[in-house]
Amino acid sequence: MSAKLPAVCLSGADYSAVELSDDDASVILLDQRLLPLEELYVELRGPAEMVRAIREMWVRGAPAIGIAAAYGVVLAARMAESSAEFDTMVEAIGEARPTAVNLRWAVERMKRVAKAAHGLGRHERVALLAAEARQLHRQDVAANRTMGALGAQYLPDGASVLTHCNAGALATGGYGTALGVIRAAVEAGKRLRVFADETRPWLQGARLTAWELARDGFDVTVISDNCAASLFGQGRLGLAIVGADRIALNGDVANKVGTYGVACLARLHDRPFYVAAPLSTLDRSTPSGDAITIEQREPAEVLEFAGRRMAPVGVAAINPSFDVTPARLVSGLFTEAGVALPVTPESVGRLLGSLD
Amino acid sequence: MSAKLPAVCLSGADYSAVELSDDDASVILLDQRLLPLEELYVELRGPAEMVRAIREMWVRGAPAIGIAAAYGVVLAARMAESSAEFDTMVEAIGEARPTAVNLRWAVERMKRVAKAAHGLGRHERVALLAAEARQLHRQDVAANRTMGALGAQYLPDGASVLTHCNAGALATGGYGTALGVIRAAVEAGKRLRVFADETRPWLQGARLTAWELARDGFDVTVISDNCAASLFGQGRLGLAIVGADRIALNGDVANKVGTYGVACLARLHDRPFYVAAPLSTLDRSTPSGDAITIEQREPAEVLEFAGRRMAPVGVAAINPSFDVTPARLVSGLFTEAGVALPVTPESVGRLLGSLD
Repeated sequence: MSAKLPAVCLSGADYSAVELSDDDASVILLDQRLLPLEELYVELRGPAEMVRAIREMWVRGAPAIGIAAAYGVVLAARMAESSAEFDTMVEAIGEARPTAVNLRWAVERMKRVAKAAHGLGRHERVALLAAEARQLHRQDVAANRTMGALGAQYLPDGASVLTHCNAGALATGGYGTALGVIRAAVEAGKRLRVFADETRPWLQGARLTAWELARDGFDVTVISDNCAASLFGQGRLGLAIVGADRIALNGDVANKVGTYGVACLARLHDRPFYVAAPLSTLDRSTPSGDAITIEQREPAEVLEFAGRRMAPVGVAAINPSFDVTPARLVSGLFTEAGVALPVTPESVGRLLGSLD
Repeated sequence: MSAKLPAVCLSGADYSAVELSDDDASVILLDQRLLPLEELYVELRGPAEMVRAIREMWVRGAPAIGIAAAYGVVLAARMAESSAEFDTMVEAIGEARPTAVNLRWAVERMKRVAKAAHGLGRHERVALLAAEARQLHRQDVAANRTMGALGAQYLPDGASVLTHCNAGALATGGYGTALGVIRAAVEAGKRLRVFADETRPWLQGARLTAWELARDGFDVTVISDNCAASLFGQGRLGLAIVGADRIALNGDVANKVGTYGVACLARLHDRPFYVAAPLSTLDRSTPSGDAITIEQREPAEVLEFAGRRMAPVGVAAINPSFDVTPARLVSGLFTEAGVALPVTPESVGRLLGSLD
């Protein structure tokens, strides 16, 4: 299954979470479960493989999932023998995981193009969908660069910055949301020290954030999630910044489990807590955080580690993959359309209005 | 090195963190690094082995470390060829780990007996020290039962209780401090649900708290440390209770890293945060939390897992083993001499006064 990246990655780097092959026939995906021990690209040739890759977190991060889904729709258009089969395949992609809204957003966008391409031959239809998916990918990278430049102003020179999970190039089309803001600040000449929560149970911080920041020469230190509180208490953290999986109309933010704890600590220690996310993460159909479905994953992800049992057999665990941070704890929201600061239904509405 | 427990354990259960053999010649220690996969008792025959066992966390938990140290002094008295050698051995035991004050407290208590036994033959000296160490062990278990009964009054029937790390039978002479309070409440007929933070990086919650509570038939659910915040946010936690490694005169509490985060979350959600600890954890020579030495352990404990690298090679980590929770965040302190509520220099002073 080992595969090679296309000669030119839309991510803009020499690594990428997800790319479409030059001939539109397969999706090249970095298997993030193996990082940082192994940098393995796999080639997916059908939509069922894409559903599995999303569900099993070979690719993760709301914007990257959205792009992967868009490319998955291209594969569906290649393979489907009928428009009913295509619809079923696309439906399955859209339901692969429940919380990140970018997944459904990307699928809806691709469905509109598929509808417009109805009546065309398969070859033309696939070409149109591939062009749309690549455009969506490019727009995500561009959005990250814009929100990076906007958000970077809020990161003081010399600051120590806490981030949770991975909201970087690996979680997006490239460059990153929260890590994009950090990249933009460093590109603007600021010196930053990044503390990466290891982010149990999947260790996206220790495995992915540390990998991409170290690879790009950043000053990054991994801490156990338990360590953040004392760093705040000792005044060693200037601010926290994270990405998002879904943002409700009132500004409530669903993101990786533990994010709400970071926001609580930032508030209690009077430090800013920022969220960086593209407009595709804002969900018009979700009025508030209460309405967000939180994915419950297998208890084994908590009870086992690297396939080895850690807790006694028979003991229960709960494993919500995300939590919801209320808007009142979010100091500012950085998007490609501007900054919401403070985060209110009105300021979120203004950002969404830029889409209309 | 596999060994068997004495026929009668001072822990009062059919398992024990640490016991002295019937002939005073060795210490039988449960290797807690292997739990819950393996329940292996090892036999330590000299003080150097005890220093290693404490430093490498075969035994952990402030009161259990204190008892292990006391038994280690017995081994030193058996082996030392001179009183200078004995002093050196005892000094090394007292310095095996820096934060838990019970270690130094137990060593000082044993040194006083050794001094009183000066001039006696080796056999009598060892017998006196063994009797003192066993007495210290019995007193620890009795203290846990007393603080358990006192603290249990503050646990409402039907409550969901969060605990962090392991402050149970495995962390003490038996019965436990925080888990002792939970045991006493359940023995009094209350129905409790316990949520155990897994407690990275050593996973004492997932490995040890889950093991001893499940073994004793309690309703225990393991969560990643990141999950606690959302449980507080959803109103699913009634209170938190933890143990302590050192308590300063002003009531500041050093305990396993992450404890301060739990205390912050409890405060922000208006839930009580209790600490249970014997008087041997209160340190007259520590005016406040600022004066407590926080052990910094190997970065590898964060960067690796079960011997397998998790973060990229070359990435830095910091790994403080403990943090300090200021007294103002502690709703109540349960000891064998009574309850400090609120926790102030005065209420802590009254508890210490009971020793005079």
